[in-house]
Amino acid sequence: MNDTFLKACRGENTDYTPVWIMRQAGRYLKQYQKIRKKVDFLTLCKTPELAAEVTIQPIDALGVDAAILFSDILIPVEAMGMDLKFLEKKGPVLNPPIRDRDSLKRLSVPNPERDLNFVMETIKILRRELDGRVPLIGFSGAPFTMATYMIEGGSSKNFLHTKRMIFQSPDLYKALMDKITKTVIEYLKSQISAGAQAVQLFDTWAGIFSPSDYKEYVLLYVTHVIDELKSWQASKKIAVPVIYFVGECGGLLEHMKSAGADVYGIDWRINLDDAIKRLGTRTVVQGNLDPVALFLPQEKIELRVKDILKRAKSAKGHIFNLGHGVLPETPPENVIALVEMVHAHSRKR
Amino acid sequence: MNDTFLKACRGENTDYTPVWIMRQAGRYLKQYQKIRKKVDFLTLCKTPELAAEVTIQPIDALGVDAAILFSDILIPVEAMGMDLKFLEKKGPVLNPPIRDRDSLKRLSVPNPERDLNFVMETIKILRRELDGRVPLIGFSGAPFTMATYMIEGGSSKNFLHTKRMIFQSPDLYKALMDKITKTVIEYLKSQISAGAQAVQLFDTWAGIFSPSDYKEYVLLYVTHVIDELKSWQASKKIAVPVIYFVGECGGLLEHMKSAGADVYGIDWRINLDDAIKRLGTRTVVQGNLDPVALFLPQEKIELRVKDILKRAKSAKGHIFNLGHGVLPETPPENVIALVEMVHAHSRKR
Repeated sequence: MNDTFLKACRGENTDYTPVWIMRQAGRYLKQYQKIRKKVDFLTLCKTPELAAEVTIQPIDALGVDAAILFSDILIPVEAMGMDLKFLEKKGPVLNPPIRDRDSLKRLSVPNPERDLNFVMETIKILRRELDGRVPLIGFSGAPFTMATYMIEGGSSKNFLHTKRMIFQSPDLYKALMDKITKTVIEYLKSQISAGAQAVQLFDTWAGIFSPSDYKEYVLLYVTHVIDELKSWQASKKIAVPVIYFVGECGGLLEHMKSAGADVYGIDWRINLDDAIKRLGTRTVVQGNLDPVALFLPQEKIELRVKDILKRAKSAKGHIFNLGHGVLPETPPENVIALVEMVHAHSRKR
Repeated sequence: MNDTFLKACRGENTDYTPVWIMRQAGRYLKQYQKIRKKVDFLTLCKTPELAAEVTIQPIDALGVDAAILFSDILIPVEAMGMDLKFLEKKGPVLNPPIRDRDSLKRLSVPNPERDLNFVMETIKILRRELDGRVPLIGFSGAPFTMATYMIEGGSSKNFLHTKRMIFQSPDLYKALMDKITKTVIEYLKSQISAGAQAVQLFDTWAGIFSPSDYKEYVLLYVTHVIDELKSWQASKKIAVPVIYFVGECGGLLEHMKSAGADVYGIDWRINLDDAIKRLGTRTVVQGNLDPVALFLPQEKIELRVKDILKRAKSAKGHIFNLGHGVLPETPPENVIALVEMVHAHSRKR
């Protein structure tokens, strides 16, 4: 059984640096495309056998040290009562967006065992099929990042509606965030109960704020999620690591570190040693290769891998990853090579 | 004559903190919309009398301490030989994009006096009409940010084509950047000769890189522009300040500071005192209110103004600005109030 990833999460010594890749189950893999030709994205997320199959594809193809549940951060948003569609070029569309009390009222906190049963089913299949090969990571969007999609009605460039709600109707925002936060807590508890061995909170859009706004409108709710998960786990005598990933975290590290996570995921726009200095050297970090660096010739990728491994040495622990999801256009052979390089060069230490 | 802005650029003492707003001439002003109803955006940029008129509108309406030439960073790109269109919802489209040697060959370094004469004409009208009321800022895109539009063929989300060229065809990228860099140098020299009293380089997209990639693929060329401008100015015995603005600069400050600019423009995602600490306290900074903070009630805007003024005290000089351009939906009365607040609270120091 390969538990290198879990050991690294806990800050324990490992024989080499474990590696997994955000969006490792995805369009850059031919195996994945083959399945997607048969079913649309949402159906894939909701069909446990298929979701489990694509989750395992990168374990076979890449040799990564962890599997991550194939799903989408908007799956629980649909279960809250919003209409969710994925349009081919536009991405997710949530209709109508949440911008007033009335639309908020229509949202409920789902019961994950009932309303998101297909996720729990996928996790159970995965634990059985992985059979200890690598640990399984569950995940959820962090409350703020989920809120942006709900308020904007999809992706956004400048998050005007979101910030406008925060600044002009702080009570409405708080009420929305309370509902989302409860949803995230219940969703992650259920995933852990179903068998997730670590969970990651994706706060992809948290980097759009000034540090003090981040603290007040984003971090508060993430901290609450992690606190709740930790005390619930303590009562159950379990200890599933929580990873907190923030996109564009460069300005926010001093605040981020108080979230209470076991591992902090770092994007590529900052040197990992600088990030560790600002987070504190008692921290376990995950990251942080620029996803587009996977388009470099392999000898150049190798230089970057070595550089990141070197910069990571000042941390209590390191899990290698990209600084954001792998891009669909990425040559798969470079991803395979990346995993090999991380293993080879970290063993030599 | 109000030279507070120029004094602050040089790090000299001022009676109050000068303020101007990125995109202060723009859609949030009714006066501007009235003119745009008559002419399209490109025609407006290219008609000196009209461009001068909209440049002056915010001086009358807001009481800011500097005027900035109304134009677009893609204007010199069109003069290099690319076909430029602005589509209503899509933004700028440059067709065909530059992705190989052949398309690069078709680009030339324009003669600004001839090919961009309308810009120089606008500057001359403005100096006459402003008549010393406030100084006039000229500007250009920084070479990298211009390159992204040329390589992507417009705006982009993940800048895949740009990074792919950099990583897979570094010689092609260098050849393109050399052409753009020469263009920027000649363009800014001409603006200064025509009467621009300060110039700003906009490096809006430089924040997409890791610090070492930023240094190699972005900063090198900006530094060359500023070096050339400085030695040319020395030979002419003039000293026009150069402002260097980087969007999402949080991870890059330690590198940025070697660009040789007189003033560094900071986005809102970092606390200004932290930015100053990392740039060095002998630096003059410009920034850094979140543009969306202008949707707050005015008493909350005021708290943020005070906070930024306080954080700026550790710098050698401070010019108040937003951390990015003002949004079209912004209530103009809040922009007017902002300018008053900056003046009032900085006088009290």
